[in-house]
Amino acid sequence: MEKLTPHEISVVLLGFAVMLGLARVFGEAFNRMRQPAIVGEILAGILLGPTVLGTVMPDLYAHIFPTTGSVAIAYHTLITLAVVLLLLIAGLEIDLSVLWQQGRAALMVSVLGTLFPFAVGFAGAYAFPRFWGIEPGADLLTFALFFGTALSISALPVIAKIMMDLDLFKTNVGMIVMGAAMFSDLLGWIIFSIILGMLNSGAGVAAENHEGLSVGTTIWLTLLLVVFTLTVGRWLVNKSLPWIQSRLSWPGGVLGFTLVLTLAGAAATEAIGIHAIFGAFLVGIAVGDSAHMRAQTRTILHQFVTYIFAPIFFVSIGLEADFLESFNLTLTLGVLAIAFFGKIAGCMLGAYLGGMPRRDALAVSFGMNARGAMEIILGLLALQYGLIQDEMFVALVVLALLSSIISAPFMAYFVERKKKWKLDELLTAGLFLPSLNARTAEEAIEELSRPAAEAAGLPVELVAREVMARERTLSTSLGYELAVPHARIEGLETPVLAIGKSRTGIDFDSRDGKPTRLIFLLLTPPDDMSAQIQIMGSIARLFKEPEIRRAALASDSLEELRALIKTEEAPISERAVEEVINEAPAPSG
Amino acid sequence: MEKLTPHEISVVLLGFAVMLGLARVFGEAFNRMRQPAIVGEILAGILLGPTVLGTVMPDLYAHIFPTTGSVAIAYHTLITLAVVLLLLIAGLEIDLSVLWQQGRAALMVSVLGTLFPFAVGFAGAYAFPRFWGIEPGADLLTFALFFGTALSISALPVIAKIMMDLDLFKTNVGMIVMGAAMFSDLLGWIIFSIILGMLNSGAGVAAENHEGLSVGTTIWLTLLLVVFTLTVGRWLVNKSLPWIQSRLSWPGGVLGFTLVLTLAGAAATEAIGIHAIFGAFLVGIAVGDSAHMRAQTRTILHQFVTYIFAPIFFVSIGLEADFLESFNLTLTLGVLAIAFFGKIAGCMLGAYLGGMPRRDALAVSFGMNARGAMEIILGLLALQYGLIQDEMFVALVVLALLSSIISAPFMAYFVERKKKWKLDELLTAGLFLPSLNARTAEEAIEELSRPAAEAAGLPVELVAREVMARERTLSTSLGYELAVPHARIEGLETPVLAIGKSRTGIDFDSRDGKPTRLIFLLLTPPDDMSAQIQIMGSIARLFKEPEIRRAALASDSLEELRALIKTEEAPISERAVEEVINEAPAPSG
Repeated sequence: MEKLTPHEISVVLLGFAVMLGLARVFGEAFNRMRQPAIVGEILAGILLGPTVLGTVMPDLYAHIFPTTGSVAIAYHTLITLAVVLLLLIAGLEIDLSVLWQQGRAALMVSVLGTLFPFAVGFAGAYAFPRFWGIEPGADLLTFALFFGTALSISALPVIAKIMMDLDLFKTNVGMIVMGAAMFSDLLGWIIFSIILGMLNSGAGVAAENHEGLSVGTTIWLTLLLVVFTLTVGRWLVNKSLPWIQSRLSWPGGVLGFTLVLTLAGAAATEAIGIHAIFGAFLVGIAVGDSAHMRAQTRTILHQFVTYIFAPIFFVSIGLEADFLESFNLTLTLGVLAIAFFGKIAGCMLGAYLGGMPRRDALAVSFGMNARGAMEIILGLLALQYGLIQDEMFVALVVLALLSSIISAPFMAYFVERKKKWKLDELLTAGLFLPSLNARTAEEAIEELSRPAAEAAGLPVELVAREVMARERTLSTSLGYELAVPHARIEGLETPVLAIGKSRTGIDFDSRDGKPTRLIFLLLTPPDDMSAQIQIMGSIARLFKEPEIRRAALASDSLEELRALIKTEEAPISERAVEEVINEAPAPSG
Repeated sequence: MEKLTPHEISVVLLGFAVMLGLARVFGEAFNRMRQPAIVGEILAGILLGPTVLGTVMPDLYAHIFPTTGSVAIAYHTLITLAVVLLLLIAGLEIDLSVLWQQGRAALMVSVLGTLFPFAVGFAGAYAFPRFWGIEPGADLLTFALFFGTALSISALPVIAKIMMDLDLFKTNVGMIVMGAAMFSDLLGWIIFSIILGMLNSGAGVAAENHEGLSVGTTIWLTLLLVVFTLTVGRWLVNKSLPWIQSRLSWPGGVLGFTLVLTLAGAAATEAIGIHAIFGAFLVGIAVGDSAHMRAQTRTILHQFVTYIFAPIFFVSIGLEADFLESFNLTLTLGVLAIAFFGKIAGCMLGAYLGGMPRRDALAVSFGMNARGAMEIILGLLALQYGLIQDEMFVALVVLALLSSIISAPFMAYFVERKKKWKLDELLTAGLFLPSLNARTAEEAIEELSRPAAEAAGLPVELVAREVMARERTLSTSLGYELAVPHARIEGLETPVLAIGKSRTGIDFDSRDGKPTRLIFLLLTPPDDMSAQIQIMGSIARLFKEPEIRRAALASDSLEELRALIKTEEAPISERAVEEVINEAPAPSG
């Protein structure tokens, strides 16, 4: 077999390491700014691509990312797998039952939020072809179909994530947005597959690609595949999963089954002349729809794809074009304007006809307007098939990023939002005292009030007095060596939590008679009733576990304690996980 | 960028689907025969490779697995990634502290169980070079070093799995085998890296591969890298993990960090003239050794690599050679004889000097003799570097398979073994009655005794009488709508469990006064005291959970019930997993 040479292997591995590493760093940085990771990942790609690295250090760039030869093929192999797996995950998130269960408003938003932007894009393409960079004599129909689709598609994963962040997932607004976005995606991909079929069968364009099928055949096969997968295929998967889970290794059996189906589906759609990712998407829908698909399998797939394959794909976007040279401000503004108008107007119209309240309608519209990965994948394919040029591709990437970035703040503005407090986010430098000097409850409260008051920008005496007053009315000991002295403090804007460890143990008058070793001093704003209850509940739930308490008592630095809290707040118990590891057969032996 | 054409993409995706699919099917089949999955996976590869498919359907074979061009490069890219990740996992399993904590016996077994087979192999190579297929004038020193290493290496993942299966993991025998196998692997890979350095720097052989380093430089760099990774590198990783877990997304931050290190380490070792996998292995040790590495991260890596990447790598072994044409019986028997002799004699000698009891020593020796993935990877590299020919490669693969297959039964024979009963393994066809007709406890016991007695090959009357006698002394109701009528039955060899569901509910005289809806009739052999306690404990633990009871009451088929039990016995709760999913940022958006 023809193989990569050792030198090529070291280049490719280095390239993957750099792509993944930079993508993760930028993704995390954007997450911390409460932005989708995809924005950072694409920026990392622009840095590594022709835009920056290729301009500043062309030799290094050509060494790591050559445009021809085995190394280029190796990159393309992994990127292809990455996008196939990404679409599998996108498909897994589509729950067909959500589509049927929504009422009239959802139906209206789905249909008008998809068809109206499609119509706007289609008409816009015909009205001003030159503005969009289409030369006279080019295939305007295909471009118009593409442009309409590009404007009508949504980004289900981004939307799902925003819904989770805003805690809207099970609300009316959330369900309507999710259902409508699924509808957009499903319809959009079907139309786009047909466009690809047209392109592949079209004269001249990529003539070597197609397998000799006419455009009609491709379209019929595509529709057949959709109907088959979503009916018979879905039924078969649902029937097979219990057997696989009961007879084969767990969760390896389901993982393998899902990936084999995905690869086979992807190969099939590629063979009939549309792109591999459409097959992966369909398989994702069929598998994800089964009630027998367990959360653990989803998690493993989701984590691996989200943190490994997706970043590699998004970085590769930046390698595709020079984002400075091909940036055309007029074109980009035009694309943004028509895309935002089409989507938001269509959704508002649907919401109005469905009788939704105005603020909810606006929230739904901005939610639907988020186009992340989907828009970019669509644009990339169109670029590769020669349907659009670099400038339009760059404009579509900007549209995807910008619409994703503004979606969450706008939705949050239009719907009421309850903040979820997390212990690890409350912990900051100086608020953890690993070794209290205090001997009594009063001394401990004073000692912890100092950093807490400083963090809150309030006088120490005030804080200590209020907390002590509360403590005197009734002990705040929770038993289990824990105490949570607390107070609502006038003038405070956000909760403050200080944690102290006592080696000797302090008498907090606990019911179980044990000395208190972990003391949580909690200050909350007077008007936020839920914060205090929520944070105290988290503390009690977490630290009543003997193992976690022991680990916390052994932590000597803020980082260790925070890592403990964070990994335990998302609680998959170690014991359970180890049992799963032990379940695994000896495959890597 | 040069890319795969759509046709090539569909071929590659189809190829991956076939490789993974067949590997999983054969792996599962061998698991069910209580054999390591790797055996089945390699057989799947032999079917797909030149041995079978290439002979029977040469055109189809050449279409799916061409030996040149972009498609071959695409396969090699994924296979390279697979083996890099496999070695990462192998490294993760190495726990350096185990090595130091064992006593004199472990030290003796480690040293003699590694050095004795090495010496035997080294001497054997010099004594009969022609027998091993070495032409006069070839580089006998390098081959002798290789052959010694090949005989001294163990297969940590296979051994770890066998220890878990036999429940020996925390016993003296288990710890000695694990410690000694780690020592063998670590030393073996260091020696082999040096051999690769010699090969790469040697005149003529793969001259285009090396980066212009002399053999001395490569060896020094290798040793430097080992020492650095296992001291400073390990310390740095251990210091970084709490920060990563507390500041970055979880568990994506650690996943990404680990993979970036792995890829970078692999690229570095490849660049200094040894193979990429050695760097991955070292990174695995450094990362896995940190106490801050959480079980959940290990699980996700382990599952994905074990069930997706490992099968693809092992299948690819079968594509490397024609296993019939290159099978040389004399050579294979010679390799088996010298390998078994060297390893077992060396370990027995070490165990004798360390003062181990004889049966324990035999168990340890057969444990150490298992060579799975490691032997094959070593052989494959030697083949690719022209150090050995196809016949020796095939002999080494046979050695790896055969020694892994016989390891578990021999160990089980030499150490006392307690069987762990699992509910899902007890459930078989006919033993689940989804709708009991019985109205009383006595009728229910009779109804369930029928299939149970049939499965046990005993008279129905006997079974029903014994169970009823036990039931009369004290109700077997557990409350929670559960009852477990049971008896120890003379002449029974293995436990039998029959499960019945009653729609109406049956009065089993429960303490909580609730009617009983799930009835477990359990028969155990009279001499196995632990089986009854263990199985009843599992039933109580599992079905006292209201959600699981509800799901069990809704199950109408054996498959559904078994899938429920199996996925819940390895219990990562769905709620916990969903919380982790919700933690994930919007990366694929």
